[in-house]
Amino acid sequence: MELHGKSILGDALADSGAETFESINPATGQKLGPAFHKADAAAIGRAMQLAEAAFTDYRQRSGAQRADFLEKIAAGIEALGDKLVERAVAETALPPARITGERGRTTGQLRLFASLAREGSWVDARIDTALPERQPLPRPDLRRMLIPLGPVVVFSASNFPLAFSVAGGDTASALAAGCPVVVKSHWAHAGVSEMVGRVIQEAAKACGLHPGVFSLLQGRGHDIGNALARHPLTRAIGFTGSRRGGLALLSAANLRPEPIPVYAEMGSINPVFVLPGAMEQRGQAIAQGLVQSVTLGVGQFCTNPGLVVARAEPRLEQFVAQVSQSIAAVAPASMLYSGLCEAYREGVDRLAAAPGVSVVGKAAQAADPARTQAGPIVFRTDATAFLANPDLSEEVFGPATVVVACPKEGDLAAIARGLEGQLTATIHGTEDDLKKNAELVAILQDKAGRLIFNAFPTGVEVSPAMNHGGPFPATTDPHYTSVGTAAILRFARPICYQGFPQSALPPELRDANPGAMWRLVNAQWRQGNV
Amino acid sequence: MELHGKSILGDALADSGAETFESINPATGQKLGPAFHKADAAAIGRAMQLAEAAFTDYRQRSGAQRADFLEKIAAGIEALGDKLVERAVAETALPPARITGERGRTTGQLRLFASLAREGSWVDARIDTALPERQPLPRPDLRRMLIPLGPVVVFSASNFPLAFSVAGGDTASALAAGCPVVVKSHWAHAGVSEMVGRVIQEAAKACGLHPGVFSLLQGRGHDIGNALARHPLTRAIGFTGSRRGGLALLSAANLRPEPIPVYAEMGSINPVFVLPGAMEQRGQAIAQGLVQSVTLGVGQFCTNPGLVVARAEPRLEQFVAQVSQSIAAVAPASMLYSGLCEAYREGVDRLAAAPGVSVVGKAAQAADPARTQAGPIVFRTDATAFLANPDLSEEVFGPATVVVACPKEGDLAAIARGLEGQLTATIHGTEDDLKKNAELVAILQDKAGRLIFNAFPTGVEVSPAMNHGGPFPATTDPHYTSVGTAAILRFARPICYQGFPQSALPPELRDANPGAMWRLVNAQWRQGNV
Repeated sequence: MELHGKSILGDALADSGAETFESINPATGQKLGPAFHKADAAAIGRAMQLAEAAFTDYRQRSGAQRADFLEKIAAGIEALGDKLVERAVAETALPPARITGERGRTTGQLRLFASLAREGSWVDARIDTALPERQPLPRPDLRRMLIPLGPVVVFSASNFPLAFSVAGGDTASALAAGCPVVVKSHWAHAGVSEMVGRVIQEAAKACGLHPGVFSLLQGRGHDIGNALARHPLTRAIGFTGSRRGGLALLSAANLRPEPIPVYAEMGSINPVFVLPGAMEQRGQAIAQGLVQSVTLGVGQFCTNPGLVVARAEPRLEQFVAQVSQSIAAVAPASMLYSGLCEAYREGVDRLAAAPGVSVVGKAAQAADPARTQAGPIVFRTDATAFLANPDLSEEVFGPATVVVACPKEGDLAAIARGLEGQLTATIHGTEDDLKKNAELVAILQDKAGRLIFNAFPTGVEVSPAMNHGGPFPATTDPHYTSVGTAAILRFARPICYQGFPQSALPPELRDANPGAMWRLVNAQWRQGNV
Repeated sequence: MELHGKSILGDALADSGAETFESINPATGQKLGPAFHKADAAAIGRAMQLAEAAFTDYRQRSGAQRADFLEKIAAGIEALGDKLVERAVAETALPPARITGERGRTTGQLRLFASLAREGSWVDARIDTALPERQPLPRPDLRRMLIPLGPVVVFSASNFPLAFSVAGGDTASALAAGCPVVVKSHWAHAGVSEMVGRVIQEAAKACGLHPGVFSLLQGRGHDIGNALARHPLTRAIGFTGSRRGGLALLSAANLRPEPIPVYAEMGSINPVFVLPGAMEQRGQAIAQGLVQSVTLGVGQFCTNPGLVVARAEPRLEQFVAQVSQSIAAVAPASMLYSGLCEAYREGVDRLAAAPGVSVVGKAAQAADPARTQAGPIVFRTDATAFLANPDLSEEVFGPATVVVACPKEGDLAAIARGLEGQLTATIHGTEDDLKKNAELVAILQDKAGRLIFNAFPTGVEVSPAMNHGGPFPATTDPHYTSVGTAAILRFARPICYQGFPQSALPPELRDANPGAMWRLVNAQWRQGNV
């Protein structure tokens, strides 16, 4: 597959825009080619018009048809074989094993949403049959289900070139819901984006869908995002990335005459609380696990633990010593692109210069800036210094973490109370620790989208019970997850049909229920016919 | 019960604020007394602090305890007996039968949310049990449910002094979800508000709840709303009222450092399309039903039909003649307060002066301004004039409607396409009409929260399948309904517990499921234990 470097507009390609960019191998600094043409205003407008035109067709496709489409995309990604892995490795410097794993997660997600769409119960169908004899007034026949919102704009994340990118979770869940998708790729892996985008383009064709069901806009810079967020045909936005990027989209969307939902997942520092019982029983193991979690994928995860809180007791010294020893052995590695690496160095310098903060461990080997490398590092401070300095709870994206020693018993709760909204919060403890720290658990419950006990926040399962979301500023809307089957709920809204004849109802709301979908019929969950 | 005229702050009363107002009997102009003291900044701050303090306790109450509280409120409202009805009639000029009916709806809603809370399945519990042997990585134990957001601010509507007011649907659903509630009453029925507020205050005491679970702020003017929307402890807002009011709250909320959800239901014109088959079969009956729906409750419903669209054919003349005849017989009646009545007169004058618009019928009897009366009126225009003038699709709150005659077949779809988001859209037709007008139905599906076939939009059932919501500007968030059991979803968000021991899990997520709640266990809906 020779890359053409152009945006995909339905079944066509955008004209070559004047402005071009290239993706770069962060491990070598080498330009990867070809020149990618940045989508211009005409391409953006065309993508949105195509999506709107496709919506009329695509919304009427059955769950089974949407499922076929998603499964064809998954198969097409697999058929790209090693070429896709090679390009992804070159564009991200992530190791082949990681990319291969991420590919499995991506195709698994597509198939999970395919099965959700095919099974159909996700539409939350509710049927209240008519009660013509009811006094004082009869009850009409009421039937409610979720219907798709319309064209969805998805912004790819840099840190998951497959799973949170062109055919990632946002795209899979929006397509499963019945919404056409316009993806704004991340420039740093434009080649992977094109490869996957072409797979989707082919799949749409093979399934006989309106080609506007999918477009891919290539580009670099914030102007495309701003234009997409303000475009009148955009009905919802999915985004994974920096807080600055997410808030810019939210603020652009708020300037629209008609508000639209912005589902921005903006990361967090994912605090880890190590309670005394756990410190006593497993302090060394927790230290080793922490270093693994902090340095996994060069720390480039939204759920990377950037804060560790524990009591200032003698065992903490052993814990910190173990952390120092483990992190020294981790080799520096290339980050996704140079801008991230620069931001990481600035963040590390900021932490190092903060009052009351010291370095307690770092990679023994020096990071090579020419290879965009970041060296893992661990800082230490105490509760007083931490609480006095809001800078210390700002995310530093990369393999760094801060250990906070708490002299007083109430310090843990005080630190938890002062935290912003988080994707995750982790507690290492015994059952006895949990009982003694009920207040801390209660506070964390209000701060985070996922609470983890005796494990680490990195590693996000894709399943019905997952919640990858959380209170602001972890996300812009805590009602929703961007991972797991519930992610589909972002892209649909309820509608109620009152008194409609069977022939005019959507199949999901008719009396006959041949697919045995779960439906709430007269307030009882049922799989049968009405 | 002697009214004290003060705001309720948990188990106490606010100090008498300097500024006072009185509610007025719109049918007589008589001041009803006592002087109500407008809540000042101190009272607002105190109410929110109390709510935050109460949240810690109230969120941990079981569904059964929340249900007891809601049922006690319902019983307390009933125990007020005729006094409540009398005061409501005096403050709103709505007839006693309507108030009695609305009281039944209000207590019914409270009991419906009580049963929802007690039964418990609304928390959408999802359990993925651990798969320790899974390759390449084990799956952790993941358990997800909805938890309450925190203090909710509810703004009472003027047009439902009970059902959308102090103990109305917003309050009932927020309390059922586990959120403390601060109500800003509507000044026009401050007396009813105090009576119901005191019932809630007593019920909280009788149930042994933290008294901050409910406060009632009395007042008039927009400053209280603005302060509540921007208060850092407010976690969500429920509102029913004018577009201006709803957008003011949304814009105040958007100025917060942390965004919060604003669920504003802002009304709409609720278009009614009468298709040729129905016009032929039942034109006269539809005309009579329309007049009933337009004039019900002096047109003061969010779902009042303000637009009727039909083909310009000879039968339309008979239809219009019937509408004229029926509306002539409807007596003018008092609106809720003089400001509404003035706005109605202005709206009617605006329609009357619009190019291409004529009056085709109105109440034979003149409206008495001294009694705040509004006279029903019906206008007529054609598709060309309607499409040329956006003013004609602006809501006129009160008993007025505009009939649009469509010379061309495509006019109906063109009018539908130009509409803003609506709470409801209605189609009168035969099954054959529906087939011939599939495009119209598809367009309306995208414009409205509820589609009604062969009935009228007024009359909103409170049930699981109801959707009282819709695309902007009908509401600020089309994902949610403010009526029916799904209204509870506005005030809760998901959280996922990973790897927690049974003893530290909320009861809803433990293996044992003594209440037989519906839960999604390993992707299967089940009522049993795990």
